[in-house]
Amino acid sequence: MTNPTTVTVLGLGPMGHALASAFLAAGHRTTVWNRTPGKADDLLARGARAAGDPAEALAASELVVACVINYAAVHAILDPVADTLRGRTLVNLSADTPRAARDTAAWAAGHGVDYLDGAIMTPVPSIGTAEAVLLLSGAEPVYRAHEGTLAALGGTATYLGTDPGRAAAYDVALLDLFWTSVAGMTHAFALAAAEDVKAGELAPFAAGIGRLLPMMVEDHAARLDAARFDGDDANIVSATSTLEHIVATAEANGLSAGVQREVLALFRRAVEAGHGQDALAKLTEHV
Amino acid sequence: MTNPTTVTVLGLGPMGHALASAFLAAGHRTTVWNRTPGKADDLLARGARAAGDPAEALAASELVVACVINYAAVHAILDPVADTLRGRTLVNLSADTPRAARDTAAWAAGHGVDYLDGAIMTPVPSIGTAEAVLLLSGAEPVYRAHEGTLAALGGTATYLGTDPGRAAAYDVALLDLFWTSVAGMTHAFALAAAEDVKAGELAPFAAGIGRLLPMMVEDHAARLDAARFDGDDANIVSATSTLEHIVATAEANGLSAGVQREVLALFRRAVEAGHGQDALAKLTEHV
Ligand SMILES: NC(=O)c1ccc[n+]([C@@H]2O[C@H](COP(=O)([O-])OP(=O)(O)OC[C@H]3O[C@@H](n4cnc5c(N)ncnc54)[C@H](OP(=O)(O)O)[C@@H]3O)[C@@H](O)[C@H]2O)c1
Ligand SMILES: NC(=O)c1ccc[n+]([C@@H]2O[C@H](COP(=O)([O-])OP(=O)(O)OC[C@H]3O[C@@H](n4cnc5c(N)ncnc54)[C@H](OP(=O)(O)O)[C@@H]3O)[C@@H](O)[C@H]2O)c1
Repeated sequence: MTNPTTVTVLGLGPMGHALASAFLAAGHRTTVWNRTPGKADDLLARGARAAGDPAEALAASELVVACVINYAAVHAILDPVADTLRGRTLVNLSADTPRAARDTAAWAAGHGVDYLDGAIMTPVPSIGTAEAVLLLSGAEPVYRAHEGTLAALGGTATYLGTDPGRAAAYDVALLDLFWTSVAGMTHAFALAAAEDVKAGELAPFAAGIGRLLPMMVEDHAARLDAARFDGDDANIVSATSTLEHIVATAEANGLSAGVQREVLALFRRAVEAGHGQDALAKLTEHV
Repeated sequence: MTNPTTVTVLGLGPMGHALASAFLAAGHRTTVWNRTPGKADDLLARGARAAGDPAEALAASELVVACVINYAAVHAILDPVADTLRGRTLVNLSADTPRAARDTAAWAAGHGVDYLDGAIMTPVPSIGTAEAVLLLSGAEPVYRAHEGTLAALGGTATYLGTDPGRAAAYDVALLDLFWTSVAGMTHAFALAAAEDVKAGELAPFAAGIGRLLPMMVEDHAARLDAARFDGDDANIVSATSTLEHIVATAEANGLSAGVQREVLALFRRAVEAGHGQDALAKLTEHV
């Protein structure tokens, strides 16, 4: 942990609020601002300062952490007050595309602002605990200057290098896995309900399926980096057949199966290209 | 473990082969048959008997386990020899729809065959170990008569009741979660590669994302069964925004995003219905 310093947090949605709370808990002098007022009450009771507007929020600290819904929101807040940000450091922990991250880094450079782009890969309750996972990219001296303060957020921060778009590149890929899986989970519970299986009945088995994923991720990655797709215990043809059952059962129950039809189309592309007996990792070439 | 008995395994794909291997390891007199010959060599060396045709395979055992790609394949094998199956027990561990399971149970009843329908929820290497998860449904006396022999397959077998379609209902729902997640993983690695992130670089973080799923499953299920969707640390609007970044980044890199566009459409349906600030579990109502 570094010496206490001054930090401003812009954005008090669930995540921004958790960040501010963690900075406070680490003893940093924390200033907060949110577009809609009234979200800081508990933080103020714990010693945070509320800024009346973005300019006041920026003026209060050397380190400014932005955590809002996307970069359009970041710019809506900061563009009018860019001059106040000059000479300070902006750590942007909002989510957006790698391109938006690079553009915002260029914008920051043009305004004399030190910039780090980051992504938070764990849920709100992880912040300030050992579970938190934070990815950061941008100029290394800026990272080194603030890693001590950012340690207040807990867990592990990984510095991914100087390309400011790199944290966002990891973020979009990881959220792709995450939200697609959530959509599958959501549909699985709907399908179960249509077949009179309660969510609580399915859950222990669904959690078991979830526990298979990390192992599959490792296998997939090793095969992709080695370009090795030889036959496996689980092949693409067999999976295609079970996807047909899923689509048929959903539609027979009057549920949409838009996501699952697209998943099936992906598997079929691989089979039609002659890769039906290959390992699942081969699917990545048919995206 | 029960006393050694006679078992026939129909189908020696990766999974059927693993089942036969586990029955042999448990000391059961095991007969095997596969449409394409030459898949049993290692099993024969360990004492399995090879049947020359399905009728011979059925005649060899009281308990017949079928594990082929789907129920069309089961019927292709068994319809011509249904009379030989009369008075024996068929445990069908192939995957298909709940409707196909119920139809096959009716077919079995019509031919004087005791029938259990099952689904295997874990990968091939799990068979014969504590990791295996097997779901079974159908007449309870049939289940009780054979659970001892089926214990050779390892892990936990769960009897889901007398509706023969129930194991398949769980199966399609769980495979929905599984294959949709695999499709997300596959696309995540493609997206990472397009952004010059190696699979091995993404993998530790992707595995971390995977480890969040079991917790989310429990939360989702509890909310669904209680019909409680009040605001959460992670809301649907925020996720919709990150899905837009995923689709944009994929398409900017020349990748398809068919699955992700459908996932985004699901999230947008929930937002448009006024549920943007609700917990993710609310998505299940918008499938
Ligand atoms: N929640 C999580 O589990 C989680 C996990 C990892 C990463 N993240 C990321 O963290 C960031 C913040 O997420 P969140 O969960 O706190 O909620 P969110 O719904 O993504 O963002 C809400 C915040 O954005 C602000 N905002 C939205 N549009 C704005 C605009 N045009 N101008 C100014 N402010 C605007 C909101 O202000 P108002 O209150 O005025 O609307 C609020 O402070 C997102 O990029 C998200 O992807 C979240
Ligand atoms: N592999 C896994 O990880 C896993 C996990 C859980 C459940 N399962 C389920 O277990 C079952 C078997 O899977 P698998 O992995 O062993 O491979 P599979 O590719 O699903 O099935 C291959 C087996 O089906 C046979 N078959 C296909 N069409 C046939 C037909 N018309 N007539 C007769 N036999 C036919 C094949 O015979 P030939 O050799 O002659 O082609 C082979 O024995 C599937 O329902 C699968 O969903 C598999």
